[in-house]
Amino acid sequence: MDGHRNWNVPALRRALQVYVLTDRVAARGRPEVELVAAALAGGATAIQLRDKERSARELCSLGTALAELCFQSGALFIVNDRLDVALACGASGVHLGQDDLPAARARAVAGPLLVIGVSAATREEAAAAAAAGADYVGVGAVFFTRTKGDAGAPIGTEGLAHVARTSRLPVVAIGGIGPENAGSAIAAGAVGVAAVSAVMAATDVAAECARLALAVRRAAQVEAERL
Amino acid sequence: MDGHRNWNVPALRRALQVYVLTDRVAARGRPEVELVAAALAGGATAIQLRDKERSARELCSLGTALAELCFQSGALFIVNDRLDVALACGASGVHLGQDDLPAARARAVAGPLLVIGVSAATREEAAAAAAAGADYVGVGAVFFTRTKGDAGAPIGTEGLAHVARTSRLPVVAIGGIGPENAGSAIAAGAVGVAAVSAVMAATDVAAECARLALAVRRAAQVEAERL
Repeated sequence: MDGHRNWNVPALRRALQVYVLTDRVAARGRPEVELVAAALAGGATAIQLRDKERSARELCSLGTALAELCFQSGALFIVNDRLDVALACGASGVHLGQDDLPAARARAVAGPLLVIGVSAATREEAAAAAAAGADYVGVGAVFFTRTKGDAGAPIGTEGLAHVARTSRLPVVAIGGIGPENAGSAIAAGAVGVAAVSAVMAATDVAAECARLALAVRRAAQVEAERL
Repeated sequence: MDGHRNWNVPALRRALQVYVLTDRVAARGRPEVELVAAALAGGATAIQLRDKERSARELCSLGTALAELCFQSGALFIVNDRLDVALACGASGVHLGQDDLPAARARAVAGPLLVIGVSAATREEAAAAAAAGADYVGVGAVFFTRTKGDAGAPIGTEGLAHVARTSRLPVVAIGGIGPENAGSAIAAGAVGVAAVSAVMAATDVAAECARLALAVRRAAQVEAERL
């Protein structure tokens, strides 16, 4: 099993549409492998393993299981922060925050095939990510979110559109996004949305993910017809 | 600058003799680059960057500076836990605890040239490290230490000798080691000693490291003559 398939730009843009992040708090003790399987059944096109508490060994073990699930579903599998874990468990990519490894260093280590995402809150950060060889940017927090304490004040759909208008890379909107507001993020120029608690905290993860996927695809269709 | 020179076995054994770990508490606010420079001036043959608090970006920046210093001195430069940081900053190797990435996965990611060290407290762990493709084992805690709260009860020089006798890999003794007891660790079969607070907390780091280096070399000479 090898997640390092070559994600060309159209395939990557499609895979970024319904991007679900794991969250241990939202999981409330339910096994994350089962929640991810449910999210994939519900139409998630990308999964990100984000966990600042687990040891690298635990992340590697969980990541290997999630990479296999995602590979079977044709979904992108991304590991947050730990490039080494991403490489060791056969993930498709790594997502780097502004305090994580610089994207250019990660690119130099990982080579051309690994998908690299970077968190960007401004046009400047998005441009720097593109220059450093990233493949997409995660822009936000768009809406208010309690999931990430350090996310800062929401930039709103205007802030998202401001960054998306000049970004050379596909933009994934993140922060407080669920089925009810995903369409506004797509209308603001994002190719996809990243959801944390909206999906993972749901009692029926598959159904909630399907609602999110529907909202994203409807909005994407409207955008495609508008252009 | 590239720390990935080929460390053949005799060169690696020499480089493991006087192995100094960074420690933010022991540094008491003094810049770690200066403390490492002092340790190298005092005869340290290997430096390990160990810091569980800093972000990957900060580790990468500090690691790049330390890798350069070590390269200039011909010393081994090892990063604790984060294989990605080790690769990104041009370190000679990575040191993995039992909760870190499995050594076999790290070897698969890093290729044959990176030096991989593994913490081992028992013969079984040391044998597993060898089978997984590690280059050396760190065995301890030999003596009582306050630096690492989770180090467990000291194994003593008897415990160290017990592991060292059957280890296919060079053994570095760790845990409460300083100039006064380094000789007993070498006599017990270690090729070198790893020191944390004994060196890094000293007011004169270079002088204390020189005392440690002298104790190790004297004991190594006795061992060489005995064999």
